[in-house]
Amino acid sequence: MGPGPINADPRVLRAMSAQLVGQYDPAMTAYMTETMGLYRQVFKTQNEQTLLIDGTSRAGIEAAMVSMIEPGDRVLVPVFGRFGHLLREIAERCGAEVHVIEAEWGTVFTPEQIEAAIIQTQPKILAVVHGDTSTTMAQPLDELGAICRAHDVIFYTDVTASLAGNTFEADAWGLDAVTAGLQKCLAGPSGSAPATFSAKAVDLVNSRKSIEAGIRSEGDEVTATPIRSNYFDLAMIFDYWGVKRLNHHTEATTMLYGSRECARLLVEEGIDEAVERHRMHGGAMLEGLRGLGLTIFGDESHKMNNVTAVFIPDGVSGDAVRGELLDDFGIEIGTSFGPLHGKVWRIGTMGYNARKDTVLTTLSALEQVLRRAGANVVGGSGVRAAYDFYASESGGPVAAATPEVAPALAESLAL
Amino acid sequence: MGPGPINADPRVLRAMSAQLVGQYDPAMTAYMTETMGLYRQVFKTQNEQTLLIDGTSRAGIEAAMVSMIEPGDRVLVPVFGRFGHLLREIAERCGAEVHVIEAEWGTVFTPEQIEAAIIQTQPKILAVVHGDTSTTMAQPLDELGAICRAHDVIFYTDVTASLAGNTFEADAWGLDAVTAGLQKCLAGPSGSAPATFSAKAVDLVNSRKSIEAGIRSEGDEVTATPIRSNYFDLAMIFDYWGVKRLNHHTEATTMLYGSRECARLLVEEGIDEAVERHRMHGGAMLEGLRGLGLTIFGDESHKMNNVTAVFIPDGVSGDAVRGELLDDFGIEIGTSFGPLHGKVWRIGTMGYNARKDTVLTTLSALEQVLRRAGANVVGGSGVRAAYDFYASESGGPVAAATPEVAPALAESLAL
Repeated sequence: MGPGPINADPRVLRAMSAQLVGQYDPAMTAYMTETMGLYRQVFKTQNEQTLLIDGTSRAGIEAAMVSMIEPGDRVLVPVFGRFGHLLREIAERCGAEVHVIEAEWGTVFTPEQIEAAIIQTQPKILAVVHGDTSTTMAQPLDELGAICRAHDVIFYTDVTASLAGNTFEADAWGLDAVTAGLQKCLAGPSGSAPATFSAKAVDLVNSRKSIEAGIRSEGDEVTATPIRSNYFDLAMIFDYWGVKRLNHHTEATTMLYGSRECARLLVEEGIDEAVERHRMHGGAMLEGLRGLGLTIFGDESHKMNNVTAVFIPDGVSGDAVRGELLDDFGIEIGTSFGPLHGKVWRIGTMGYNARKDTVLTTLSALEQVLRRAGANVVGGSGVRAAYDFYASESGGPVAAATPEVAPALAESLAL
Repeated sequence: MGPGPINADPRVLRAMSAQLVGQYDPAMTAYMTETMGLYRQVFKTQNEQTLLIDGTSRAGIEAAMVSMIEPGDRVLVPVFGRFGHLLREIAERCGAEVHVIEAEWGTVFTPEQIEAAIIQTQPKILAVVHGDTSTTMAQPLDELGAICRAHDVIFYTDVTASLAGNTFEADAWGLDAVTAGLQKCLAGPSGSAPATFSAKAVDLVNSRKSIEAGIRSEGDEVTATPIRSNYFDLAMIFDYWGVKRLNHHTEATTMLYGSRECARLLVEEGIDEAVERHRMHGGAMLEGLRGLGLTIFGDESHKMNNVTAVFIPDGVSGDAVRGELLDDFGIEIGTSFGPLHGKVWRIGTMGYNARKDTVLTTLSALEQVLRRAGANVVGGSGVRAAYDFYASESGGPVAAATPEVAPALAESLAL
């Protein structure tokens, strides 16, 4: 029940135990093509170039950036958590001139703030994470596509932490490049990075391929520079996944099986239905945590559905509570990075773990562990609040109001 | 039965269906540490930095190169097949000044040829593939370590196509960096790249980390340049796999399980015993193919145990034979790349498929398909030759000599 990776859906693991087929076996290339179609539905896009990068979600980010960024390009990175810093770091390694704007952790940017920075820095690319798991915040992206188009900016986002747990629409929101990973709401293991690229992004990437192929000698004006990576050369990866089937790396067959199954299950459930499931169980977890007397971190109106951060109460050892939950109850929760390290716990309700039983089990166990840590917890207060939330969601009668409101734990510790 | 990827060992696939654990769960970090130890045995090394790169074998190559090569560095690449060209291509993308020597496909280099090129080009790094699957040749490496030490050259090899099917000794041969993949003799799926780095290579890589960390401002003389990739930054990956456990990417848990099981099975069998198994079944396949009247491609004295290339007989459609084998018999064999495309078939006997039953079944089926393609094949000639080879290996009585030697297929076609 941490911020991910979490338990994989058993059906994904079963799919990954299927025997391998050859790299160019018609069954294999058919799986690849089918996977492209499934991820178009997950990303809500018509983009032809919708495929997998063979590596973790970070590999997807680097493939998008190294293939689109030419050394010296200006890239604007709005940073509102750790993974914004990662985008900045990777853009710098690609040789970009990176401009950063920062929002306090636990908040997001307004579209106006981002447009002002675009006007000021005139970037070629806007690179922003959708959900930054480190703060649990989701940056609204729906108005940024139009702003990027107006200023002729390539619009890139990473949705590893948010996809399938929060509304996301690649085409409607005007995205040019989107990367993701399996280990959050997609309910799979880390190691495959679904990604999609608009025609504009594909043109940019392919313009850099033509140099490599030796077009330079034909007297064309050279404006593009070769892509610095072979493994992450999207122009080559497009040709591998496309009708040309030009050999590149040897596709990671088992991860392909897993990625395909993650998407198949989501499409079967319905993408909107999956988001709604995350909203419901995430809401129950949040109310349950509040019921236990914990204080929610960050701007709740921009929180992702699938992960909730709460302040660790004064006097309680965050690591000791996490250790006892893991060792004695078999339940993992996380802390966070940088300024939030040791200050908050992050509790996920995502993918296969976005379920009523996992929410109630976690709240039950956390109550016990908090009590043993010396907190004056009202018995049943977390589980009751979650039940109340579920009841209000289903339109049924809400249980009687909790007779005693748990005082803030920070004030009630008897250590 | 192609040149890889081939069928994975079912035990590897079962290991990959295990449920995930958290990134810093003590069970997970223990698996990582255990995997390092297992691969030290597979590579025959004492190198502390023996770990997995999260991507296909090509990712391992790029991680080694981008972390060791600084722009402008001279790199010597002896090329004797397609994958030598890949090393050249990746080194160029890293900004190296690449020097190439080429051997005719189907041959390898003498140590003297490589030393002469080292003396002439004075490279920082010698990068050479051990086995080049495109030609089935294995470059002898055992004398190159001493040559590299004498000339202060970093010695790097990729053993994806050869490891565990052919003798390899990282430390005894003086290797500084070695990368591999699972999809050949390791009997796993593509998607994880085991790799090992000597103290000298680690020092080189870590010298480039210190610049990033801001040492530059302390007035030290700057000789190193930052690593261009984040995902493939070995300095960060060392700190992730090491005692510091500094967060980098989210380890690909399922691929880790698979990689660990591949190594565990090899260690259980014995590395030398696994090589011997590949030698035996590869030898039976080679003799069986010759028994069918096919001509072996390349220098047999330097052929890898685990893959055999044979010329496609004149008048026979290589693709039609491969298609019939796959569609009607469920057996895949390969062709090759570049100058060998459509001229040879490549037939593997590796990993889980290095077995007597797979050898005999493949020879049986190939006999039938060749006959239907119009070849005048002597019934049973391939299987008999394989049986004879097995009998000679076991010291038992060799079957009576084949009464009729199959004439070369090229001469006997009745199309």
